[in-house]
Amino acid sequence: MKKNHDLKPLLLTPGPVPIPEAILYSLSKPMIHHRCSEFEGIFKHTKTLLKKIFQTDQEVFILNSSGTGAMASSLLNTLSPKDTVLAISAGKFGERWAEMATAYGLQLLKWEAPWGQTVLSEKIRSLIDKNPQIKAILVQACETSTGVLHPIKELAALTRDNPDILLIVDAISALGAVDIKMDEWGLDVMIGGSQKSFCLPAGMSFIALSQKAWKFNESSRFPVYYLDLKKEKIQTKGQTAFSTNVSFIRALHAFLLPLEETNGLKKMIQKSEQLSKMTYLFCQSLHLNIFANPPSPSVTSIALPSHIDGVKLKKHIEEKYQVMLGGGQGKLKGRIIRVGHLGAISTDDLKRGLKSLTLGLQFFDPRMVTKKIL
Amino acid sequence: MKKNHDLKPLLLTPGPVPIPEAILYSLSKPMIHHRCSEFEGIFKHTKTLLKKIFQTDQEVFILNSSGTGAMASSLLNTLSPKDTVLAISAGKFGERWAEMATAYGLQLLKWEAPWGQTVLSEKIRSLIDKNPQIKAILVQACETSTGVLHPIKELAALTRDNPDILLIVDAISALGAVDIKMDEWGLDVMIGGSQKSFCLPAGMSFIALSQKAWKFNESSRFPVYYLDLKKEKIQTKGQTAFSTNVSFIRALHAFLLPLEETNGLKKMIQKSEQLSKMTYLFCQSLHLNIFANPPSPSVTSIALPSHIDGVKLKKHIEEKYQVMLGGGQGKLKGRIIRVGHLGAISTDDLKRGLKSLTLGLQFFDPRMVTKKIL
Repeated sequence: MKKNHDLKPLLLTPGPVPIPEAILYSLSKPMIHHRCSEFEGIFKHTKTLLKKIFQTDQEVFILNSSGTGAMASSLLNTLSPKDTVLAISAGKFGERWAEMATAYGLQLLKWEAPWGQTVLSEKIRSLIDKNPQIKAILVQACETSTGVLHPIKELAALTRDNPDILLIVDAISALGAVDIKMDEWGLDVMIGGSQKSFCLPAGMSFIALSQKAWKFNESSRFPVYYLDLKKEKIQTKGQTAFSTNVSFIRALHAFLLPLEETNGLKKMIQKSEQLSKMTYLFCQSLHLNIFANPPSPSVTSIALPSHIDGVKLKKHIEEKYQVMLGGGQGKLKGRIIRVGHLGAISTDDLKRGLKSLTLGLQFFDPRMVTKKIL
Repeated sequence: MKKNHDLKPLLLTPGPVPIPEAILYSLSKPMIHHRCSEFEGIFKHTKTLLKKIFQTDQEVFILNSSGTGAMASSLLNTLSPKDTVLAISAGKFGERWAEMATAYGLQLLKWEAPWGQTVLSEKIRSLIDKNPQIKAILVQACETSTGVLHPIKELAALTRDNPDILLIVDAISALGAVDIKMDEWGLDVMIGGSQKSFCLPAGMSFIALSQKAWKFNESSRFPVYYLDLKKEKIQTKGQTAFSTNVSFIRALHAFLLPLEETNGLKKMIQKSEQLSKMTYLFCQSLHLNIFANPPSPSVTSIALPSHIDGVKLKKHIEEKYQVMLGGGQGKLKGRIIRVGHLGAISTDDLKRGLKSLTLGLQFFDPRMVTKKIL
């Protein structure tokens, strides 16, 4: 099928997200040096603003890596080889925690939930009780591959008063779309990524540590150089340990600055909830099931009827309507469609995305879509 | 002193370098997904073009890290804990090799040359002969902090026929400005960074391994996950192991594409040599010494007379003429000025930079600059 070039492409995946014009403009500004006072001021202010999105008073470090680099940093800076970790796995990114822990020589306990489901904190409590050697629980806030929301607040309640165990949360696809109160709930490490709510390209990650996690850092014995948070403490002075991605920092500043004045985090979260609800109502109207239970407001994964091939559907929608939706990953390939609610997606964008999905479904099975719905 | 805002700022440091308009435009293009066919095509082609700059037939991997991340990757992917390495240190970045090797639990032999000087390959040969346990030599092609060019071709001649030792070259501030023939000379690992000749912001690095280095990779026992080159072998299929900085890849493609048609690498190298020569003649006219011996064509470091404070001089030139030159780092702070010849610097840019340096020197010591020179 020929591409329809008359339509403006729409990116509706759970990251990367569309980049607003003002951020694109910022990315195209002439280079300045990362060791000049102009940049230092921007960098320091950006870090202050990041704290609000993280809902923390702790320092939020900016790392020159994808989100996976910050996940690696969280382990390398708080634990030691052969420490035991409990990885909660309910999808591709939970699996990443488990693989990474093994690669770094940690003892791995893995608690698996079926993809699309979450864990019960009571079960995790009993695992902690039976395995007092566990030094950290590794979890996603939102499991991007299935759209599940894990019970971060409840998990934090299990760890916050225990000085011997950390809760390490990959919040990459949740931050800015889901209300996560790092300090109030007592998360120990929280991780974000540039290509999600922050409306930047991929390539930059964010990480904050609780005081308890910093205590762990003192006795951590992993060899680390790149991604070493001790080295990055220089960030409090407006510098980074190594060369800085000046363009991304300026763009991040341009993104965060207006949020400060407008109760921005709250509005971002409300918008994601609204888009999530619209998508839920759309699914109801077509008798489609939401795949995740409970679903995250940041991404809706839609279970496809078994006679619809999700790979073909996604491709059809991309080519005919210039709308890119998320597909299923790993064992979910072809079985689900994921719709992102992160970043600068408007309700009109979502309407266009859902319309294209409706028309795509109708193309593969006209019985699924009645005239009334169209 | 008040800033002079009428002048267009000029960045004349040895990285980051000014970003040409076409690359800035590319950075401001709307986001597309990193798992779509359009991006895969760009990514694959970019990697083909990178090989020409690396002068290699080996795969050049693109990493989501600053250059230091690629340095870390070079060790973590070829060596094992407690292996012995010989770090050649003649400046800040040679020191970084030594620090990093120690941080990763390698046995460190360090050969130091005075800052501003290089090493003799005969001396390195005798060190190799006396220490057959050495598994790798770690060196810079250009030591950015002093502007020295190390004898890479001669060092490669010592290692290329020895299957038990690797030559690992940080060519970050040399690639694209200095003629380095990775395959022909027999380098085992070569590393580049986006913010130098490639005219991008910092944040992306490049790394290529010889067949010998890949053999080392098979028996390497470092725990590695992020920056794992085995995982990045997926790059041959147009993908990256983790989320991709789509914007930087597109900008890199925009930078490399025209070079293909125009014998681009050769011209880039010739331009750097020309700028280097202009700067040398300028120094002669003012009776200023070049600090480095031998100097790299990619950056000229100028020794300042002892009565001139380089920190004040650099600041004066920045504020009055809006030209940012490089200063001295570490023990060279205030003692040298570094002028970059990398990336999109024109001869007119350099003339403006040298004029501002002349006027700055005249401000601090009128006797240094005669009317004839001005």
